[in-house]
Amino acid sequence: MTRAADIAVVTGVVLMTLLTVAPAYDLLHRWIDTFLWVCLAFFVFEWGVRLRHAMMTQRLPAYLLSVRGLVDTASALAVPLALVLGVESRTAWLLGMFWLLKGLPGIRGLRQLRRVIVQESGPLFSVLVIFLMVLFLASVMVYLLERDVQPATFGSIPAALWWAVATLTTTGYGDAVPITPLGRLIAAFVMICGLGVFGLWTGILATGFAAETRRDNFLRTWESVSKVPFFASLGPAAIADVTQMLRTMDLPARTMIIRKGQAGDCMYFIASGEVEVDLPGKKVLLRDGAFFGEMALLGNNLRSANITTTRVSQLLVLDLVDFRMLMARHPDLAETIDAEAKRRALENQ
Amino acid sequence: MTRAADIAVVTGVVLMTLLTVAPAYDLLHRWIDTFLWVCLAFFVFEWGVRLRHAMMTQRLPAYLLSVRGLVDTASALAVPLALVLGVESRTAWLLGMFWLLKGLPGIRGLRQLRRVIVQESGPLFSVLVIFLMVLFLASVMVYLLERDVQPATFGSIPAALWWAVATLTTTGYGDAVPITPLGRLIAAFVMICGLGVFGLWTGILATGFAAETRRDNFLRTWESVSKVPFFASLGPAAIADVTQMLRTMDLPARTMIIRKGQAGDCMYFIASGEVEVDLPGKKVLLRDGAFFGEMALLGNNLRSANITTTRVSQLLVLDLVDFRMLMARHPDLAETIDAEAKRRALENQ
Amino acid sequence: MTRAADIAVVTGVVLMTLLTVAPAYDLLHRWIDTFLWVCLAFFVFEWGVRLRHAMMTQRLPAYLLSVRGLVDTASALAVPLALVLGVESRTAWLLGMFWLLKGLPGIRGLRQLRRVIVQESGPLFSVLVIFLMVLFLASVMVYLLERDVQPATFGSIPAALWWAVATLTTTGYGDAVPITPLGRLIAAFVMICGLGVFGLWTGILATGFAAETRRDNFLRTWESVSKVPFFASLGPAAIADVTQMLRTMDLPARTMIIRKGQAGDCMYFIASGEVEVDLPGKKVLLRDGAFFGEMALLGNNLRSANITTTRVSQLLVLDLVDFRMLMARHPDLAETIDAEAKRRALENQ
Amino acid sequence: MTRAADIAVVTGVVLMTLLTVAPAYDLLHRWIDTFLWVCLAFFVFEWGVRLRHAMMTQRLPAYLLSVRGLVDTASALAVPLALVLGVESRTAWLLGMFWLLKGLPGIRGLRQLRRVIVQESGPLFSVLVIFLMVLFLASVMVYLLERDVQPATFGSIPAALWWAVATLTTTGYGDAVPITPLGRLIAAFVMICGLGVFGLWTGILATGFAAETRRDNFLRTWESVSKVPFFASLGPAAIADVTQMLRTMDLPARTMIIRKGQAGDCMYFIASGEVEVDLPGKKVLLRDGAFFGEMALLGNNLRSANITTTRVSQLLVLDLVDFRMLMARHPDLAETIDAEAKRRALENQ
Repeated sequence: MTRAADIAVVTGVVLMTLLTVAPAYDLLHRWIDTFLWVCLAFFVFEWGVRLRHAMMTQRLPAYLLSVRGLVDTASALAVPLALVLGVESRTAWLLGMFWLLKGLPGIRGLRQLRRVIVQESGPLFSVLVIFLMVLFLASVMVYLLERDVQPATFGSIPAALWWAVATLTTTGYGDAVPITPLGRLIAAFVMICGLGVFGLWTGILATGFAAETRRDNFLRTWESVSKVPFFASLGPAAIADVTQMLRTMDLPARTMIIRKGQAGDCMYFIASGEVEVDLPGKKVLLRDGAFFGEMALLGNNLRSANITTTRVSQLLVLDLVDFRMLMARHPDLAETIDAEAKRRALENQ
Repeated sequence: MTRAADIAVVTGVVLMTLLTVAPAYDLLHRWIDTFLWVCLAFFVFEWGVRLRHAMMTQRLPAYLLSVRGLVDTASALAVPLALVLGVESRTAWLLGMFWLLKGLPGIRGLRQLRRVIVQESGPLFSVLVIFLMVLFLASVMVYLLERDVQPATFGSIPAALWWAVATLTTTGYGDAVPITPLGRLIAAFVMICGLGVFGLWTGILATGFAAETRRDNFLRTWESVSKVPFFASLGPAAIADVTQMLRTMDLPARTMIIRKGQAGDCMYFIASGEVEVDLPGKKVLLRDGAFFGEMALLGNNLRSANITTTRVSQLLVLDLVDFRMLMARHPDLAETIDAEAKRRALENQ
Repeated sequence: MTRAADIAVVTGVVLMTLLTVAPAYDLLHRWIDTFLWVCLAFFVFEWGVRLRHAMMTQRLPAYLLSVRGLVDTASALAVPLALVLGVESRTAWLLGMFWLLKGLPGIRGLRQLRRVIVQESGPLFSVLVIFLMVLFLASVMVYLLERDVQPATFGSIPAALWWAVATLTTTGYGDAVPITPLGRLIAAFVMICGLGVFGLWTGILATGFAAETRRDNFLRTWESVSKVPFFASLGPAAIADVTQMLRTMDLPARTMIIRKGQAGDCMYFIASGEVEVDLPGKKVLLRDGAFFGEMALLGNNLRSANITTTRVSQLLVLDLVDFRMLMARHPDLAETIDAEAKRRALENQ
Repeated sequence: MTRAADIAVVTGVVLMTLLTVAPAYDLLHRWIDTFLWVCLAFFVFEWGVRLRHAMMTQRLPAYLLSVRGLVDTASALAVPLALVLGVESRTAWLLGMFWLLKGLPGIRGLRQLRRVIVQESGPLFSVLVIFLMVLFLASVMVYLLERDVQPATFGSIPAALWWAVATLTTTGYGDAVPITPLGRLIAAFVMICGLGVFGLWTGILATGFAAETRRDNFLRTWESVSKVPFFASLGPAAIADVTQMLRTMDLPARTMIIRKGQAGDCMYFIASGEVEVDLPGKKVLLRDGAFFGEMALLGNNLRSANITTTRVSQLLVLDLVDFRMLMARHPDLAETIDAEAKRRALENQ
């Protein structure tokens, strides 16, 4: 149903856009109207289903007050309500813009973004306050300097604020530009502040993102590591070490992971799923907990066989860099990999 | 009083803005004038109180010369002085923009921002000097190239500087644009330099911010860690380790920290305050030094009870990632948590 | 042949540019036409050679469907095809813009960039979706607010989208500017969102780049380290340590690496190649596996001799910072360097 | 002499600026001309002195071909040569812009910036090439789409390139704006690419800067650490550790370092110089190798005495964060500081 909702949202957005383009609407207004009604019907239906489900699980108030519930309600009711209230039909349909918000929960990584913003809210807010202060002070000063010279564009503080925000964000429309020397000096200062605000903001977000990425990766990998028996024998210190080094990779069925003859710089552990090794003369299947591609890390740079997933699989990837460090810190682990690699090499000769 | 001052500042800013909007002022000038006088009276009163306090503690000169003292004095005296000197009333009130500066000390995280800027002042200043050099050299060159073609916009170096600053900051008003081929080539170079300056500035600030965040977090956490008896038994090495991993969290009373049934990925230590665990059939109170939420880190992913603060509390948060590492490096600590968790599980069965 | 292709691409780009400048074309059209035909001939020839080679190695379909193959085919056929189809000659030649894509595989570091973008594609995509949502919502709202006031610039949602994209990216052409107060408020919000999108994007890329740089450097250095016998005696832990600290440096023949009398803060290991040490009275040659410049790290800050490569060489650079840490962690390594340095000092006295 | 040169450069820049402002020049042309000649005389004299010094140390060709030598020569000769060749006087003086380049070697941190740019030149160059490719391809496409609609602004590829560079850098002058739907689509894509280029560039520089800052700080601190006898007893591992944690601080004479009653979060070691501790009833002088402010790190948060430098001093600062870690890793060091602190506390009671 999520896929269907996505299609309905995109269709709705395209239709709303066409609705406002006079030639397109004149030509296609039957189709546009019909499809808009279809979209609306879909969202009303979806809302109904969810309402019913919420009622049956006795969570109706919680659903109605949640972000998702509010978006669903607005998506279903805004357009009909506007039509009933006598709003002009083409304007009413534009309230379908609430449909777009339905996409929000589907964005992968949004949770990560939100966590960064929450964690760094302190400094981000400080920068915002400084931003607003510079904005207002610059507006008052430029208003005082320019109001007599350009009463049309700098005739009030709101007008000056409009100039200031376009300048501080370095947008620079050019519809309001100071012309007195002092006004221009202040404007130059505001522009340079703009760069500074930018820089601070980015610096804060970059810092937060680095921390969050590390954390997120650990959490995702941790679960998979515990599924690989190979690591189970390790002590907790080694497991924490290994978890930080691995990277998870989700693959659909029939995806080629390793291509024969290519240069390789990582090895793989199978957290779940199955892969097929296409050796000369025979095909070997590897399942949960097995590893492959270790030859590339043990000196043989070129991959010696094609390896493909046979069903949806989750792999853990270990880069050459990290393999070296792991070998250094946990020699027993390295020995196990080494022994297995030799066994395989013998077997395949 | 800080809250009152904040309200007065925001009111003042809104009133000053309205003052300059002709229709609003015509309609509401009585109200606007009255409230502006109220705001002013508030700031004069606040200044008086602080002056008196400074005199009584014999710190009058120190107060008057401090940033806060200067802002207070300007806030109280600027508008009356302007009115006395015969400045037109609506212009005089705009000097109330000094009121805005009163907000500065209240910005959380401003100290952190200032430290970053001080620490990185060397490279930031270098970038600024390069910025100014590019600015002047580009201005002279474009002035030479464009002065004959566009005497109105590039007729002097200050005019060319105005163009250069709008270009180098990538604001690009469009009121001054070179039209000779060579002038445009220089302009293109200036724009690309602008990106470079941006990048350098941001890079510097990001680096500084990462270091400062780490430092700031350590300082804030360190104090709280010492209040948790649980950590007191650790050696200094372990305490330094733990401090780097914890994050402080200040919560008001009656805030839900853990919601039953949600997925959890961190545990909490109570640095100060009290929380209520809402177990089936009974309510347990946990106080300073206790910990909770550890089940989530020991394999049971879903929270098993609602937990709420009963008064203003300070918690230390330990993420799953860091818990794993801590366990690895300090097994005794992990055992204590493990034992307590088992004891609780038994008790609650 | 790569060098020749680069020249042909640059020549082609210059010629296409000149082609569209009326005065230049009138003056030089014979030369421009001739050289364009030469460029085209070159690319057709190159395509032919590659086709033949692909056919002989029986990889024709793979080549034709690879990015390189498609670019080669388009470069060779687009212009002639357009000419044959009767497209006006000067327009047809502009299809030579495909030639530019031939430069892509030659960009050093492009692989690194691509890896960063792939690794961080999750959060980057999230930001893009947020970007598009803000874009559409702002467009609809500004369209509703401005369509009656400025029907020419905000008369449809596509027109409003054009304004929104120029605003959200802080480009700000100024050809479409909201004039209603509410429209301007939304515009201000969009601009500030623009800064935020920027900041997030940059933060994500910066994080990814830091990880990728570390990884890339390790991989490049690892191979070279194994060529230096000096490190061969180290255990795997030490080798992983050393590899992280070293930096590779590829030098052409007859390049001066160390200049006598300069301050030095790093030492060098020769991974491959040969250098000449210009000692007073004699010249010493150092080959693969040797090291030099270690005096600078052992207290003597000024370089005591000129050192120059005699042929293409690859060096491993060890900075003072890292040398200190290495010394601390692997005292045996430090002793070897120390002993060799003393031996050399005695020999040179 | 450097200070004098800085003054001459700034004076020259101001004079050149005034020279082009008609009213200012009419009023002050005697003064402006006189001072410009004085500046020029200064630079010619400086050049002469340096030439002579270079001749006496037999480094004349090296000096003349160095960046500094070229700038000096251009500064001294450009204006007189232009005047002799009959260039109009006010234009000739503008060649004084070479004077500005004299400031370059004086920029602190420029070396650090240059190192970052050199180290990261690979990826930076890749981004630049991508930038140029997007630029040219977008120009050609927009030229094809817009040339018939707006022949004045998009009549040739150079004209389209001008638009593209202003768009890709998000400057957006607004003098050239596509108006066809397809042209606007390409423009939107170019703007978003602009954000990406920005982001990549910044990400690369931020990464490089983080590495360089760490390195630079280590180098500067290393020298000073060796001057503090207190650290001399440590093994090399501990010294490398300590060096990474300390930060150098250069202070002029009579600067207050610690103010009584303030909160403290760092301690200081004297690398060179002297400080005066203003204890009640007596003044204590501390010299090279001594440390102070350690009480703040041992539990007593408020500084107990004013401490001022008596002459130019170099201090090493150890933050609370790092002190904790140092204590954890090197308990003997912590004991020494602890013992000294107790001795002082006893003495001062």
